[in-house]
Amino acid sequence: MSSLVTEPELGTYCRQTAEAARAASYELASLDTEVKNRWLHQSADALVAHSDKIIAANQLDLAAAPEYGLTDAAIDRLRLDDQRIAAIAAGLREIAALPDPIGEVIDGFTRPGGLQILKRRVPLGVVFFIYESRPNVTADAAGICVKSGNAVILRGGKEAIHSSRAIVDQLSAVAVQSGIPKAAVQLVATTDRAAVGEFLTMSDLIDVTIPRGGEGLIRRVATEATMPVIKHFDGNCHVYVDTSADIDMAASIIENAKCQRMGVCNACESLLIHESVASTALPAIADRLRKYNIEMRADARAKEWLPDAVAATEEDWGTEYLGPTISIAVVDSISQAIEHINRYGSHHTDAIVTNDLQAADTFTTRVDSAAVMVNASTRFNDGGVFGLGAEIGISTDKFHARGPCGLRELTSYKYIVRGNGQIRE
Amino acid sequence: MSSLVTEPELGTYCRQTAEAARAASYELASLDTEVKNRWLHQSADALVAHSDKIIAANQLDLAAAPEYGLTDAAIDRLRLDDQRIAAIAAGLREIAALPDPIGEVIDGFTRPGGLQILKRRVPLGVVFFIYESRPNVTADAAGICVKSGNAVILRGGKEAIHSSRAIVDQLSAVAVQSGIPKAAVQLVATTDRAAVGEFLTMSDLIDVTIPRGGEGLIRRVATEATMPVIKHFDGNCHVYVDTSADIDMAASIIENAKCQRMGVCNACESLLIHESVASTALPAIADRLRKYNIEMRADARAKEWLPDAVAATEEDWGTEYLGPTISIAVVDSISQAIEHINRYGSHHTDAIVTNDLQAADTFTTRVDSAAVMVNASTRFNDGGVFGLGAEIGISTDKFHARGPCGLRELTSYKYIVRGNGQIRE
Repeated sequence: MSSLVTEPELGTYCRQTAEAARAASYELASLDTEVKNRWLHQSADALVAHSDKIIAANQLDLAAAPEYGLTDAAIDRLRLDDQRIAAIAAGLREIAALPDPIGEVIDGFTRPGGLQILKRRVPLGVVFFIYESRPNVTADAAGICVKSGNAVILRGGKEAIHSSRAIVDQLSAVAVQSGIPKAAVQLVATTDRAAVGEFLTMSDLIDVTIPRGGEGLIRRVATEATMPVIKHFDGNCHVYVDTSADIDMAASIIENAKCQRMGVCNACESLLIHESVASTALPAIADRLRKYNIEMRADARAKEWLPDAVAATEEDWGTEYLGPTISIAVVDSISQAIEHINRYGSHHTDAIVTNDLQAADTFTTRVDSAAVMVNASTRFNDGGVFGLGAEIGISTDKFHARGPCGLRELTSYKYIVRGNGQIRE
Repeated sequence: MSSLVTEPELGTYCRQTAEAARAASYELASLDTEVKNRWLHQSADALVAHSDKIIAANQLDLAAAPEYGLTDAAIDRLRLDDQRIAAIAAGLREIAALPDPIGEVIDGFTRPGGLQILKRRVPLGVVFFIYESRPNVTADAAGICVKSGNAVILRGGKEAIHSSRAIVDQLSAVAVQSGIPKAAVQLVATTDRAAVGEFLTMSDLIDVTIPRGGEGLIRRVATEATMPVIKHFDGNCHVYVDTSADIDMAASIIENAKCQRMGVCNACESLLIHESVASTALPAIADRLRKYNIEMRADARAKEWLPDAVAATEEDWGTEYLGPTISIAVVDSISQAIEHINRYGSHHTDAIVTNDLQAADTFTTRVDSAAVMVNASTRFNDGGVFGLGAEIGISTDKFHARGPCGLRELTSYKYIVRGNGQIRE
């Protein structure tokens, strides 16, 4: 794949790709919902009908996986079979079933003098999406972008490049017959890292870049990009157990938030306990965590009730372990808990366990995170769980889109003003 | 003023300023509307009560104006008197009268399993606002930011620095007694250009930068900033006269859009005429423009009807004159007009004059601009005219905020999830 575009032609290739996307975006902006949904359904059909081709391409990626040093878990996520292709197709049909955000009237009013003003939802335009190696993401991202009226330039991970190519080939094959411009979905035809740098300079043609992957990639993109970026950092998520908490509920929420799935951004990484309940809550919670062999890194006060805990360092409070470790601190007050979370957390998802209404209000108002949970697991911060449908990621930004990014989060708006000859005095 | 902070201390000073703003922003986020409004009213009272001090400070700026090479018009905009201070105070009272966007529930639903989800509007946090020399902007921006729950770091132009300082002194003097943190509004205590660069690196403390001024400044800020930027470029606005247009209406709209105020971003810079009406519309429109001595730069077909026009060059189509010049082209179709606008325009404000419903729909759908006008002057793209209240600028971005930026455009949202012990399966 990487030989498709040679170094000297890279800049030209990237610009032509972006120009084609821009032209497609103008067509996409005014397409009927029916056309977009038809493409989604025909794409789903095509993926299933040609699953043999996709599986054959996937074999090439699997064969190359050891050379990329992929772990067994990563190789398993990379692997496609009939069932997984059917799931990818089902994902596209689910996007078709979601309401079309484009054309939605967000606001509207008539002004003195008779000007009629509508604020109407429109696509952003061209999305540059950089993502890791799971091939299902290729179809998901294409579906979400096109349904929201955007053209997308997909920059998939090299580990899945043949699978991604085979999937995009199917989406493109049905594009024109469905009424969608062919350049609505383009996969970058090179895995050369320099191509990312080229696209990041094209703020005249690309409206937003969405990087999904490790922190290093996201920071590189945020620094180099000349256009807006929607960032998806991992989460250093907290659970705070308040003085009025139901201890059983707290233990159950922490067990779920920490242990149900450890490598995800909405898993709990840090536990804060009000000093008044430390003696009862900590032993009960520790019992749950020990079942999963979670290493506990505790401050001095928490260690009093956790003989097997390791002493936490300052670094632990800011660490997202994404694995079987948790930091634990005792706090004197809800205010101290909130300050700790706003200082060390990553503004992703934080929870309080409490039966005190005022404490719940204080926590939800003052914790500066995309999602704040009361008596529920941090694991619920997810577009699907929230009922928002498919998502292209979970934004840790405050600007434009915060939390789950679905169809609406890939839109802008315009003001449409109708008059009958009005001029300004 | 510029000597208040010396070079070696600049980085420390800027970081301390931003840290104080960040701390204030957490307090501001949960302030009652009443407290914010009390501060706005008390600030208005203080400005009027101490107008002598403000006018004395303004005299220092006026005395320095020749050394900065200010034009007579710029000096007039800089000048403060009792009446203008009363107008600034009235602006703050108007902001107090606007609805508070913070706390607004944008969306809310209950999920299967009983999780109750609210999407609630919250402040962005800390705004870094860079602006030109008009001292009234200092009070306006402070009022808009604080009412929307944000702390603001004001970087005013050096030409008005004494006036701005005197105004901020009054706002700060009443802050604590009103219940607002003192660091909610801070004016950068140096006019050293390097200070801007320092602040632009602080994405950990500043949530958004809003530069207002020349294109060079905005481009510099967009390039250097490590946090999101809301950009306010000038507008290369078009009026397109369709085949079905009422010619009198078209002439009146173009006269208003071009001539009512020439140096503003929503003034018309380019005129497109459908070839079928060129012979009638162009002479009628030219009669209006000649009254204001507007130089017409026309393509070959338009020149046929405009003997006194200059031949337009390719450069003219992309130029924002901000003065008594207009470019004029004849087009074969509405599609050609739309392509011209999307290619050469600045996506700010564009208008069609037509009596054809389908043409109006095509134009408003396909023109990719913040505001699209039908049978109304481009001059109406303005937060006040739209009824949105005070604005901090008119965004030419698509991301986050497009068009007039008022209170709501300075907000984000958070998800608040209430459960009774739910865990994820």
